Amino acid sequence: MDRTGAVAALRQAVAAAGQSIDGSAWCVALSGGPDSLALAAVAAGLRPTTALIVDHRLQAGSDTVAETAHRQALALGCVAAHVLSVDVGRSGGPEAAARQARYAALDTARDGAPVLLGHTLDDQAETVLLGLGRGSGARSIAGMRAHDPPWHRPLLGVRRTLTHAVCDELGLTPWQDPHNADRRFTRVRLRHEVLPLLEDVLGGGVAEALARTATALREDTETLDALAGEALAGARTEAGLDTARLAPLPDALRRRVIRAWLLDGGACDLTDIQIRGVDRLVTAWRGQGGVAVGSGLRKQRLFAARRNGVLTMHTEPV
Amino acid sequence: MDRTGAVAALRQAVAAAGQSIDGSAWCVALSGGPDSLALAAVAAGLRPTTALIVDHRLQAGSDTVAETAHRQALALGCVAAHVLSVDVGRSGGPEAAARQARYAALDTARDGAPVLLGHTLDDQAETVLLGLGRGSGARSIAGMRAHDPPWHRPLLGVRRTLTHAVCDELGLTPWQDPHNADRRFTRVRLRHEVLPLLEDVLGGGVAEALARTATALREDTETLDALAGEALAGARTEAGLDTARLAPLPDALRRRVIRAWLLDGGACDLTDIQIRGVDRLVTAWRGQGGVAVGSGLRKQRLFAARRNGVLTMHTEPV
Repeated sequence: MDRTGAVAALRQAVAAAGQSIDGSAWCVALSGGPDSLALAAVAAGLRPTTALIVDHRLQAGSDTVAETAHRQALALGCVAAHVLSVDVGRSGGPEAAARQARYAALDTARDGAPVLLGHTLDDQAETVLLGLGRGSGARSIAGMRAHDPPWHRPLLGVRRTLTHAVCDELGLTPWQDPHNADRRFTRVRLRHEVLPLLEDVLGGGVAEALARTATALREDTETLDALAGEALAGARTEAGLDTARLAPLPDALRRRVIRAWLLDGGACDLTDIQIRGVDRLVTAWRGQGGVAVGSGLRKQRLFAARRNGVLTMHTEPV
Repeated sequence: MDRTGAVAALRQAVAAAGQSIDGSAWCVALSGGPDSLALAAVAAGLRPTTALIVDHRLQAGSDTVAETAHRQALALGCVAAHVLSVDVGRSGGPEAAARQARYAALDTARDGAPVLLGHTLDDQAETVLLGLGRGSGARSIAGMRAHDPPWHRPLLGVRRTLTHAVCDELGLTPWQDPHNADRRFTRVRLRHEVLPLLEDVLGGGVAEALARTATALREDTETLDALAGEALAGARTEAGLDTARLAPLPDALRRRVIRAWLLDGGACDLTDIQIRGVDRLVTAWRGQGGVAVGSGLRKQRLFAARRNGVLTMHTEPV
């Protein structure tokens, strides 16, 4: 880094990721923080770049933060910069609601262009640790995709220290989100307490190891999901799912088929216990009754049951 | 637990696991610590039980510890108890060498019977965290199998607090391994520092969540390994591996096929970087040279290369 400079190192990472990004221009989602500011600075040197700045209007002075980011983006060579003011709802908790509003606004404003997001390797590592607490297997710790068009994360292999060094090198003053120091947020405590302790106990390289794990599990999960999709198509009958087709599948595949089928039929908030309950209708059949699964229906419960060797779904009034 | 008692709760867990364990009698691997002592106590009430006590002869007084465990086993109703004194080598580090010596001695002494091991849910959670530091994906965090004949782990769904409560209830004084308080061991620090912090930050239930993740990833990995085994058989030619058969496979499957093929050909200590290097001979072929991979051969290096659309392996003198 001393030799080439932080800006050159970051440019190399973004240019490499750019080989997998279509289009002659792109957008950068800019919060004004060090990661997205460094990304905007480097991206603007590679393709015509439009900065999209979401003002969530959740903190006092958020309009000033957005205005500063807008000015910085143009100074960094972005061809355009737009502030997108959004109304954050309440569905699914404050963080999920903000994320939903943010992505919706970005998707509308991007005008067909790909959008670069500033998530770093450190964010990926924190995502894995967050997912571990949920305990729902590979799906919850598989981490974020590097390329999930129109969304792209060219900094996913880059440490946060590099984006900070880029801001220093360019003399940029990034916004410091006060949330990032607020220990009431799980992610903040993972960053400032858990990861440093894990680094100490496991002997270093933990963030990189977590990120590698995230990538490997992402690939595993996508492969199994694709295979489950084929198996689901093969097991469907007019009435439901043919248990004779499900039974010979490997466990991990059969449970994914059942999960996909239930979601398809309107189930939501599925738990591992529910999926295993439905699975036992296939693998440990002894005439047991239907298994209740979560549904978004009012005053109705969703059941999966087995009849004549076929898994079927039906609703019952509560 | 207050209502039924710790012993009854543990007996239920072991009896349930026993439904998947063949044979009319079984062995218990007994260290004399609380987990295996509680297991031996409960197991002896369910089937004729032989206690196998491995004396690693690594700590002063280990013979006394083994002798005490021997006496306790018989007092608990085991039909037999044998102390197995082993010589621990040095290969792979002290912990790996001790494990290898232990399993070899148990395998010889079990005389065809299944062996119950005292690993608990807490051990499983620690194994996941240890594997995270390695960062080699699902394989390194998939945890221990509940049933891997002749080895069985009936306590894998049980917290360590329960085995301790069983010892209390039965008035047993288990051996306290001084290693379990020695913070030079990574596992000890994970147990006493990392897991409590994670419980605090993520809001409880972390050990259970890690154990659920271990199970799910174990199933995923075994499914993918089985599919990779089939794909490997289909891609083999006399000269090596047919890249035309490999190319259409999903990433996670193709890399597993390559990994299995390399291991089969004598590679060892394979890294993710090496596997991805060989993978690029398939997916990003531009005439590049062979990829060096680790091998156990003296003065020889193992190379994977591509010739006429076929992956081949060869050795070169160092």
